[in-house]
Amino acid sequence: MPTTVITNIGSLVTNDPSLGAGPLGLVADAAVVMEDGRIAWVGPAGRAPAADETFDAGGRAVLPGFVDSHSHLVFGGDRTQEFNARMSGTPYTAGGIRTTVAATRAASDEELDANVARYVAEARRQGTTTIETKSGYGLTPEDEARSLRIAGRHTSETTYLGAHIVPPEYTDDPAGYVDLVTGPMLDACAPHARWVDVFCEKGAFDGDQARAILTAGARRGLVPRVHANQLGPGPGVQLAVELGAASADHCTHLTDADVDALASGTGTVATLLPGAEFSTRATYPDARRLIDAGAVVALSTDCNPGSSFTSSMPFCIAVAVRDMRMTPDEAVAAATLGGARALRRDDVGHLTPGARADLMLLDAPSHVHLAYRPGVPLVSRVWQGGIQVA
Amino acid sequence: MPTTVITNIGSLVTNDPSLGAGPLGLVADAAVVMEDGRIAWVGPAGRAPAADETFDAGGRAVLPGFVDSHSHLVFGGDRTQEFNARMSGTPYTAGGIRTTVAATRAASDEELDANVARYVAEARRQGTTTIETKSGYGLTPEDEARSLRIAGRHTSETTYLGAHIVPPEYTDDPAGYVDLVTGPMLDACAPHARWVDVFCEKGAFDGDQARAILTAGARRGLVPRVHANQLGPGPGVQLAVELGAASADHCTHLTDADVDALASGTGTVATLLPGAEFSTRATYPDARRLIDAGAVVALSTDCNPGSSFTSSMPFCIAVAVRDMRMTPDEAVAAATLGGARALRRDDVGHLTPGARADLMLLDAPSHVHLAYRPGVPLVSRVWQGGIQVA
Repeated sequence: MPTTVITNIGSLVTNDPSLGAGPLGLVADAAVVMEDGRIAWVGPAGRAPAADETFDAGGRAVLPGFVDSHSHLVFGGDRTQEFNARMSGTPYTAGGIRTTVAATRAASDEELDANVARYVAEARRQGTTTIETKSGYGLTPEDEARSLRIAGRHTSETTYLGAHIVPPEYTDDPAGYVDLVTGPMLDACAPHARWVDVFCEKGAFDGDQARAILTAGARRGLVPRVHANQLGPGPGVQLAVELGAASADHCTHLTDADVDALASGTGTVATLLPGAEFSTRATYPDARRLIDAGAVVALSTDCNPGSSFTSSMPFCIAVAVRDMRMTPDEAVAAATLGGARALRRDDVGHLTPGARADLMLLDAPSHVHLAYRPGVPLVSRVWQGGIQVA
Repeated sequence: MPTTVITNIGSLVTNDPSLGAGPLGLVADAAVVMEDGRIAWVGPAGRAPAADETFDAGGRAVLPGFVDSHSHLVFGGDRTQEFNARMSGTPYTAGGIRTTVAATRAASDEELDANVARYVAEARRQGTTTIETKSGYGLTPEDEARSLRIAGRHTSETTYLGAHIVPPEYTDDPAGYVDLVTGPMLDACAPHARWVDVFCEKGAFDGDQARAILTAGARRGLVPRVHANQLGPGPGVQLAVELGAASADHCTHLTDADVDALASGTGTVATLLPGAEFSTRATYPDARRLIDAGAVVALSTDCNPGSSFTSSMPFCIAVAVRDMRMTPDEAVAAATLGGARALRRDDVGHLTPGARADLMLLDAPSHVHLAYRPGVPLVSRVWQGGIQVA
C-alpha cells in the first residue's frame, strides 16, 4: 500500500499533548504521513518524510475522525409525524419507541441493511469514522439478533439493547420480559455484540432490572454501557459506575453524588447527547459541571428516528458549545478522543503514530470553526484507515 | 432553452395555497415544469405535460429556494479568537465589528470578491437562491461604495449599511459621522444599493440618528430596512414601521407595542436571525408571539464573521423550531416566502407558475426533515433560474 503525506495543514488536532500544544496537541503548519492504514508520522510540514502520494491541505485544518459512541441505526420507518406533533406541544416520552419497533419488525433484512448503510455513509461524509450502533427496535430474540447481525456488517461496535423498552406484548409481564432479555434473547444476541446496554429510566427499566440485565450480559462477555438519567434523576449513573460500564449516556439529570461517581476515575465516561435535548426541547446536560469535577466527557449523536434524528457530530459540537458550556476545544476533544474512551478504543480518536489513519479535512482554518460556523457542512474530505472515503 | 420536468416529487412545497394543501400549498406525488428560467407548470405528476428533459426526484421533497434576506458577506479576516473568548464567557457587544472593519479596509478588491463568492456558493449549496448582502465594514465613502460594487457582482439585493457602527476615527464626533453617512457616503453608495439599513442599538445609532439616515437614504430611492431591538429594547421596530421599512431585523427584545406595530399590516416584515442568538448565547426572539399577533415573519442567517457565522438556512430553520416556538411548516415558510416578502420580491419564495425557477431537492421525503434532522446536509440539488447550480 503506497504511503500518503497530507501536507500544508494549517492547524492539526492530534489529541496527543506530546505532539503539540495544549490538550488537543495542536500542530501548526503540519503534515501527517499515513502508511498501511495507520498514522506513520506527525509533525511540522517542513520536516515530513517523503511519501508515494501527496495531498495538499491548502492551509486548512485536519483532525481525527469523529467517534460517535451512541447511535440507533437499525430501524424501519420514520417518525416525522410524531416530531411535528411534538414541535406543536406534545411532550417526548419513551413510548414513541414502540412505533419504531413495529416498523422495524415489519422491515425486511434488505431494508434494514440499506438504512444502516445510508446513515453510516451520511455520518461518514460529516467526519464520523467510528460509529457504535445498537439493537433495540426488535425486542424479540430473532429481531434483536437480526438487528445486531445487520449492524455488524457496518461496524464492529455493536450493542445489544434488548432492554430498550418493554414491548407491547409484555406490558403486563415486565419481569417475564427481563427473563427473556437475560435468557434466550441474550443467547441469540451475545455472539453478535460487543456491548450490552439498558434504557434505565422511568417508563423503561428500573435499577434492579437494569442491574440484572447488565450483569447477565457481562457474564457473556458483553461490556456494559447504560442509558442513564436522561428524562429525570435515577439510579442509572451510579449503577454504570458500580458495574464498571464503559459509559453512562445522556447524564442530563445528575445529583452531586452522580457527578462525584463519574469523576471518581473508575473509567465510566459521561457521554452527552445534545441532539436528544435539541429535538425534544429538553434541558441540556451541564458538561461544564462534569468537566470541572474531573469526569471524562464524550459527545455523540444518539442518531435515532424518535428523539434525535441527526447524524451530525459537527452539529452536536456546536450545540454543546452553545448550550452545555463547553469550550470549542473541549467539544472537539469530546467528539473524538472522548468517544474513543467511551468505546475503550485506543486506536482511534487521536493521531499518534500507530493509531488508525482516521482523519478529516475541514474547509476551514481551525477546528474552532466547527462551533463558530454552526450548520455549515465544513467536512471536506475524510480518510478511514488511510483510504479517502468522502 | 429546453424545458425540464422534475417528476416523482414525493412532497412539493409551493407556498401557494391555491395549488395545494394548507398554507404551504403542499402537493403530494407532484411534478414541476421549468421553462426559460421560470416555473411553467405545477401539479400532480400523472398530469404533467411533456418536457425536453426529465429529472426524477425519487419520491423526495422539493421546495422553493431559500431567500436569505439578511447577510453581511463583504468582509475581510475572521473572528475565531473573539468567538473562542466569548464561548469562555466574554459577552458580545457591537464593538467587535471594528475588528472586521480594519480587516475589510485592508483587504484587496480581489480578496473581498473571492470571499463574497465563496459564501454565496456555500449558501447556494445549502439551498439559498436569493441572498441579500450589506456593506458596513468599510465605513468610509470609498470603502462602502467598494463593498457595494463587489456585492453587486453576486446579488441584486444590496444594502447600504454605512451606519453599522461609528468607526474609530469618529468616536468623538458621532454627529459628524451621521453627516458623512447621509452626505458624501450616501452619494457614493446610492448608485450601487437597493436598500438602506441602520444598526439602531445602544452603542451604535439611536432613534434620531437612525431616522435621519433612513430618511436620507429613502430620498435617494433606497428602501429602508432596520437592525432593530437586537441587544435590548429600543426605538428600532417602531421607526421601521413608521418609515415603511421592508423589514425590522432581529426583533429579539420587543414590547407589546412593538409587536402590535409589526402586526399592523403596514408591510414591515419581522426578520428573525436565530444564528445571532445561537452564536452569542443570547435569548431567542419569540416567533410564536409575533405569528400569533399576525406579523409576517422571515428567517435569515445574518451571516457575518462576528455574531453569526452561519450561511445555513436549514440550521436556522432547525433552531427556530427548537427555540423560537415555530412549527416546521412556519419555519420553512419564513425561510422562503417570508424572506421574499422582506425583500419585497414576488418572483421568488414560491413556485406559482411564472415565478423564478429557484428550487431545491432534499434528500428526505418531506420539508419537515429540515427541522427533524438538524445539522444534516439534506439539500441534494439546487436549481436557480431553471439551471442546476448545486
